[in-house]
Amino acid sequence: MRKMAGNSVLLAAVSVLSACQQSYFALHVAKARLKYKVMPPAVSGSPEFERIFRAQQNGVEFYPLFMITLWMAGWYFNQVFATCLGLVYMYARHQYFWGYSEAAKKRILGFRLSLGALALLALLNRVDTISRFRSVYVACNIAQRHRTQ
Amino acid sequence: MRKMAGNSVLLAAVSVLSACQQSYFALHVAKARLKYKVMPPAVSGSPEFERIFRAQQNGVEFYPLFMITLWMAGWYFNQVFATCLGLVYMYARHQYFWGYSEAAKKRILGFRLSLGALALLALLNRVDTISRFRSVYVACNIAQRHRTQ
Amino acid sequence: MRKMAGNSVLLAAVSVLSACQQSYFALHVAKARLKYKVMPPAVSGSPEFERIFRAQQNGVEFYPLFMITLWMAGWYFNQVFATCLGLVYMYARHQYFWGYSEAAKKRILGFRLSLGALALLALLNRVDTISRFRSVYVACNIAQRHRTQ
Repeated sequence: MRKMAGNSVLLAAVSVLSACQQSYFALHVAKARLKYKVMPPAVSGSPEFERIFRAQQNGVEFYPLFMITLWMAGWYFNQVFATCLGLVYMYARHQYFWGYSEAAKKRILGFRLSLGALALLALLNRVDTISRFRSVYVACNIAQRHRTQ
Repeated sequence: MRKMAGNSVLLAAVSVLSACQQSYFALHVAKARLKYKVMPPAVSGSPEFERIFRAQQNGVEFYPLFMITLWMAGWYFNQVFATCLGLVYMYARHQYFWGYSEAAKKRILGFRLSLGALALLALLNRVDTISRFRSVYVACNIAQRHRTQ
Repeated sequence: MRKMAGNSVLLAAVSVLSACQQSYFALHVAKARLKYKVMPPAVSGSPEFERIFRAQQNGVEFYPLFMITLWMAGWYFNQVFATCLGLVYMYARHQYFWGYSEAAKKRILGFRLSLGALALLALLNRVDTISRFRSVYVACNIAQRHRTQ
């Protein structure tokens, strides 16, 4: 277990870092509640608050997808490559959050970048899955050839 | 680590597949925003959009629960069985999403099926936990008997 | 894999327990829908329902952060300590949910406790990361000294 955990230390670091980032966004929503006087449990009333709230919510929605694709790409493909894409995703989330809290239009650039990083992470998994199936297929072929010889 | 990862390849495949499904639902919400002219950051205004949005949000809410119960059932009980239940859950989510986007009443069938799959996954964990505690208990009993003899 | 899974049995138990807790909160929201006559897909209309809904949503938002920090602290620091903090977090979530469903002000105590538990879990990870980097640094130093001698 220790060995396995030791091999995933970069993935773990990115995961905890992005958890801190999400907490930071959540804290910013709490501050915006006070600033724009939106009392809980209300989540609407001020467009500025709504933008910040939606920016954080969107991050929350994508967080599990990010975690799953990051860990799978790191385990089954390459940890360093997955970690780099994870950092790109975190940067894109940062751009998205601050862009969105300024204006709805400014969210688009960061969002596209974050989707790109996610898509690449998901793609790495598929590459590996395909190569795994191929190696199984090749192994079966060799086994069959041996039997027929 | 590779060995552990190799042993969880089915769970990983289901996880990445369901992450793709969730992304697909999110994409559909973005399309519905344009179709029903609900501009961000608003999330209400058109009942059609609200239904699609809530259907996606419900999937988001249950996604981490699904992941946790899937992996735990796969690790501690049986990977193939957990994978099958995971596919049932994904099918139920599909039914739920498209049912809900048509009418609020049509969401119920898919929702019940998804809850059933989740409950079974959680149950498998408990079965295993109980059998683990039992084996610890039996081992303690045997150890005690040896000591008293 | 079995060995690794066996070493994480406490973390797995806390994860499944907290998944059950989240499902229980979700069930309570469904009941509140009927009680306060808020028909899907609407999520507003009655302040009582809105409080319960926001309480559950907040739990959903923090659930992935909780899972990540719990597992990382358990893998890289100490499983028993992480499990205890996980149980504290679950208790805090319980207080938060029932406090919030009574009055918006009563949510604060549980929320602070839950943030404290999360912060401690995240801190444990950093302690470990720093000690890891330090041990790598020390190892490099020793290696260099050997070379220069």
